[in-house]
Amino acid sequence: MILAGLYGGRGYVARELARLLIAHPQAEIAWWHSREAGSAEEAHRNLMGTGLRFVSGNEPPDADVAFICAPVGVAMDVAPALLERGVKVVAMAADFRLKDQGVFERVYGTHRRWELVKEAVYGIPELHREAIHSARLIANPGCFSSAAILALAPLIRRGGVDVRRLVVDGISGTSGAGAGLDRSMHHPEMWQTVLPYNVVDHRHSYEMESQLSALAGEEATVHFTSYYGCFGRGILAACHAFPEKLPEREALLDAYEEFYAGHPFVRVNRLPRDAEAGWNYAPYPSVADVAGSNYCQIGLDVDERRGRIVVFSAIDNMGKGACGAAVQNMNLMFDLVETVGLTTPGLGI
Amino acid sequence: MILAGLYGGRGYVARELARLLIAHPQAEIAWWHSREAGSAEEAHRNLMGTGLRFVSGNEPPDADVAFICAPVGVAMDVAPALLERGVKVVAMAADFRLKDQGVFERVYGTHRRWELVKEAVYGIPELHREAIHSARLIANPGCFSSAAILALAPLIRRGGVDVRRLVVDGISGTSGAGAGLDRSMHHPEMWQTVLPYNVVDHRHSYEMESQLSALAGEEATVHFTSYYGCFGRGILAACHAFPEKLPEREALLDAYEEFYAGHPFVRVNRLPRDAEAGWNYAPYPSVADVAGSNYCQIGLDVDERRGRIVVFSAIDNMGKGACGAAVQNMNLMFDLVETVGLTTPGLGI
Amino acid sequence: MILAGLYGGRGYVARELARLLIAHPQAEIAWWHSREAGSAEEAHRNLMGTGLRFVSGNEPPDADVAFICAPVGVAMDVAPALLERGVKVVAMAADFRLKDQGVFERVYGTHRRWELVKEAVYGIPELHREAIHSARLIANPGCFSSAAILALAPLIRRGGVDVRRLVVDGISGTSGAGAGLDRSMHHPEMWQTVLPYNVVDHRHSYEMESQLSALAGEEATVHFTSYYGCFGRGILAACHAFPEKLPEREALLDAYEEFYAGHPFVRVNRLPRDAEAGWNYAPYPSVADVAGSNYCQIGLDVDERRGRIVVFSAIDNMGKGACGAAVQNMNLMFDLVETVGLTTPGLGI
Amino acid sequence: MILAGLYGGRGYVARELARLLIAHPQAEIAWWHSREAGSAEEAHRNLMGTGLRFVSGNEPPDADVAFICAPVGVAMDVAPALLERGVKVVAMAADFRLKDQGVFERVYGTHRRWELVKEAVYGIPELHREAIHSARLIANPGCFSSAAILALAPLIRRGGVDVRRLVVDGISGTSGAGAGLDRSMHHPEMWQTVLPYNVVDHRHSYEMESQLSALAGEEATVHFTSYYGCFGRGILAACHAFPEKLPEREALLDAYEEFYAGHPFVRVNRLPRDAEAGWNYAPYPSVADVAGSNYCQIGLDVDERRGRIVVFSAIDNMGKGACGAAVQNMNLMFDLVETVGLTTPGLGI
Repeated sequence: MILAGLYGGRGYVARELARLLIAHPQAEIAWWHSREAGSAEEAHRNLMGTGLRFVSGNEPPDADVAFICAPVGVAMDVAPALLERGVKVVAMAADFRLKDQGVFERVYGTHRRWELVKEAVYGIPELHREAIHSARLIANPGCFSSAAILALAPLIRRGGVDVRRLVVDGISGTSGAGAGLDRSMHHPEMWQTVLPYNVVDHRHSYEMESQLSALAGEEATVHFTSYYGCFGRGILAACHAFPEKLPEREALLDAYEEFYAGHPFVRVNRLPRDAEAGWNYAPYPSVADVAGSNYCQIGLDVDERRGRIVVFSAIDNMGKGACGAAVQNMNLMFDLVETVGLTTPGLGI
Repeated sequence: MILAGLYGGRGYVARELARLLIAHPQAEIAWWHSREAGSAEEAHRNLMGTGLRFVSGNEPPDADVAFICAPVGVAMDVAPALLERGVKVVAMAADFRLKDQGVFERVYGTHRRWELVKEAVYGIPELHREAIHSARLIANPGCFSSAAILALAPLIRRGGVDVRRLVVDGISGTSGAGAGLDRSMHHPEMWQTVLPYNVVDHRHSYEMESQLSALAGEEATVHFTSYYGCFGRGILAACHAFPEKLPEREALLDAYEEFYAGHPFVRVNRLPRDAEAGWNYAPYPSVADVAGSNYCQIGLDVDERRGRIVVFSAIDNMGKGACGAAVQNMNLMFDLVETVGLTTPGLGI
Repeated sequence: MILAGLYGGRGYVARELARLLIAHPQAEIAWWHSREAGSAEEAHRNLMGTGLRFVSGNEPPDADVAFICAPVGVAMDVAPALLERGVKVVAMAADFRLKDQGVFERVYGTHRRWELVKEAVYGIPELHREAIHSARLIANPGCFSSAAILALAPLIRRGGVDVRRLVVDGISGTSGAGAGLDRSMHHPEMWQTVLPYNVVDHRHSYEMESQLSALAGEEATVHFTSYYGCFGRGILAACHAFPEKLPEREALLDAYEEFYAGHPFVRVNRLPRDAEAGWNYAPYPSVADVAGSNYCQIGLDVDERRGRIVVFSAIDNMGKGACGAAVQNMNLMFDLVETVGLTTPGLGI
Repeated sequence: MILAGLYGGRGYVARELARLLIAHPQAEIAWWHSREAGSAEEAHRNLMGTGLRFVSGNEPPDADVAFICAPVGVAMDVAPALLERGVKVVAMAADFRLKDQGVFERVYGTHRRWELVKEAVYGIPELHREAIHSARLIANPGCFSSAAILALAPLIRRGGVDVRRLVVDGISGTSGAGAGLDRSMHHPEMWQTVLPYNVVDHRHSYEMESQLSALAGEEATVHFTSYYGCFGRGILAACHAFPEKLPEREALLDAYEEFYAGHPFVRVNRLPRDAEAGWNYAPYPSVADVAGSNYCQIGLDVDERRGRIVVFSAIDNMGKGACGAAVQNMNLMFDLVETVGLTTPGLGI
């Protein structure tokens, strides 16, 4: 059994990690640290009956791995002591995600332990599986970043698109807004709408650009806009790219399937356009089909008349976009089967 | 590994059973029978990448257990051959739920294999765990029936309420309406409403009355009304009972905890009224906290001024209300740990 | 033009009243008082472009009518000065709704101007139209109260039911929770649930009992429970009554139609059970069909086997349940056509 | 009183037009034609109590104006006879929207009355108010077209952006899918998702390109993708443009305000970024704030780092995107005040 510690008590990332670890057959929650001790069941009513409690205080007890579910800035402070004691660390916030210190500090402010960034591995196993295997510090990716990078990586790797004009719209469920109360997340205001926010220069843009530039071998620019939709879980990323020479749709789908061969959590949608599922929507992913899971579904199309490629990815922002990915990274770090604890398909309904 | 067969391909009960069995560590889908052969991934896009396919034809292949996910009337026809070949059977529809032939036939029409009803065990483990252990034929309960019976059983067992005036309102997610298209389930008509249907003499009333009468030792009458709410998964059952002598709330809660001691999937909410969760709602269950799980949460209150007891139960209609319960029954029939494959807590968000 | 003043700036009742008054052809907003002056468009973005602003300070300017949209306790303080200056007053909170001082003070605390209660008219025109015509002070009813009273009044007037065991479940949209942030109304927690709250001894119970007792000529007891559903606007009230002698459904429908003859905003659903609308739900109201309007739709059924009558009413909690009713009352007080400004049918979709 | 005829009985466009005309003080429904005669209240339960009925047969009775709410192809057949009899016509489908016959026929098939297209006026009053005043045939715009054109027109008129790379994402409520049952619109499948459809070469692209090219004075290319969101009413259009020289945000807002000066239904959002409304979302429109109304709200931002302009517009797809615009066009054609019958602000909650 892997002993897992949770750092950060009342947020949604911690809640979801607890939910996944409770069901994980080869891991268990050793401790759950929060500023205030108390019953975790009051803060997280879906965990009622588990008997889980928050501990507080400065010195977290022993564990094999610790998930730091706290705002950016905390992980860089608590990780060093954990690593020193041999505890592997998964940082759920942005502390170790960007490799360019100038960019990081402009976006997030001063970094107090930049030397850790060098050894941190960006936690998308579909791009960095080998490095994750041997890592002791994971920079777990941002939710929108995961969705956009998974959607665009095979296309960028393949080449032939204008990497300075990648346009990405990301629509997230409101769990992405976190547990803090906010008027825009008040149910009467949010239940029947779709709401743009952080519409330019979103922090996650830099993660996308960092990862995709590495794949492209040149500087990529991601024009990213985010939205909240009136559902709880999931992200749909719609990624528009302009090709130099228009590829055939089937050839692109082949490239995607090849890229993700051997990666169990990414599924490329090759349903025929007239599949029984209704409309002519069958070849594109629907957020509901991955909600509650660690899966990513990808679909794409090509506008032959106007010269555009559009790629869609759907993930659960709390799953593959955060906690599912973190568990997948844990599995790899501890040489477990990559999928253990994560095999439940999406809800669908 | 338990080899499980699914009978009935394109409905939501089959979809959800497949989802649970895929993640179950000690069972696997041996075959999935449907009227038309084909890819299960087109019908159930949340299963994309599983490679599951429907088989058709008259003779289902071997299995240890078969789940009959078909409208009432099918299970009574296909169960006998399966049982003869040593396959245990879980009937997801109403074929074997009612013990009174007159009542059954008035509600559902002619029964062609009544002798099977006698050996069928009603699949609520919290009431019939021992019988389920040794059963080869399970009558899996109706979704509303499960919610109402779990809410009322401890109260009825305790006694002291007017069992002829049990008033139950059950609000279900729309997955309960099934996969068949219907104008009232068209999203534009359903997304912002709550809709009464089957408002008197609902078929599930008879299951509730059958089980609760047995507990009461006298004839119980359940005045049941059902509604669809504008969410996908879950049932809230609100059960009103009139006591002869008003009990104290704490004493009632004690009785519920005692009744469900040793039953891992039922959780009695004893949060204080001023818990941090907001409003003064903390002591009552919220459907979201059990959605996606096999858990049932129960809360209750007492109106001291007017003399009424109200008990709420929340379940996932697809989970504890159907497929989760079916897997729990399977676990018991095959002497597995009762909770295996069902340990994921509710979604919460 | 009727000059209308709004007292209370940032709540949802004020927002909705402004929305209705802007579109009213014979009334206009003369002033909108709030604790802090400022643009109303920032607080209420649906009013963008109207140029409306909040005024503050102690002395509200002149008007023909003032709507007091403030928590209970404010109207009793500000109404006297307004009435003295000849301004008619519609109190949107509970200050003047209950006629029994002992009950009022137990539920809401001390009343500082009880003499005003005597002249206040309870603002359900379908019961008190004549008194409203000549009133200068209206006690605008509670949202659940309106729904339950409209559903039960014809039945109680008709007689023959057990008035001590009226069971009412009221499911409200979350706009009923108001503009104040609360964890239970945080979208990620509320979007996929139905949530019981105030499950016994709800304040609105007393309004229902007060009005229905008057109709019954004896003391009525309403066993009321409230819920939030995951939609924004609307209330469905489900009212269960036990008859001494079971009436025929058609006879009951006749009684309802007769009761509401000449009342333009209450519509009794007499659609056949097999109407094209789907399921067998046609004879019951759906909240969506009255959302955004001042209409109330009523449907009912009779359980011949078990002896129960169930009556459903659907209203918009912000419309007929609050602001629509307030405008209807204003129309009557100023001898306008009762329906002016309120003729838009419900949204439906 | 303007006598209005409705052609097409059971769809959502007809339902919404009826709803608006019922409340319109200077128009009334003279007849409502449908293939089958019968009660309109069964098909449209929000109209219960209106007594409206469908008439059938070949010869529609007299009227001042007829709204043709039927699939493309019908209006071109029925309009000529109506126009001959002096009835003004508003075609709600695409029959007369495109001015290039080659494009029309490739997209929609053969046009049988092309000569009518020449006199038809494209019904966006903010662009063609004068022509609408004197028109007898209106091509009412597509819902997405209205949203995108209103968002982009001032920018295109101003110039300085790459008109060949306009990227538009349009997220629509499901009422846009119409009343026909479809599996993707089945509530259990749609309630918790966002779903791409018609992701390239959408028919509305051609309307956008037609109108924007005219404004640009050169050929504009719109890379348009559409989605359904899990709400009923509204469209958010997100329009990305690449400028040659980056404008200041305030200068752009000035240009938008100037463009829409004198146009009462378009509101440019100039709220400060730190407005009280929460998050930093204040300067962008939310669909909920225009739902149920004829208003369009516009907000925009500029990415100074990467060189992108993003403009958002929000409308009700059934309001300004269809029926509200149609009534506005009717008002202009009959020299009424442009806003009459359309003054209700958006729902907000």
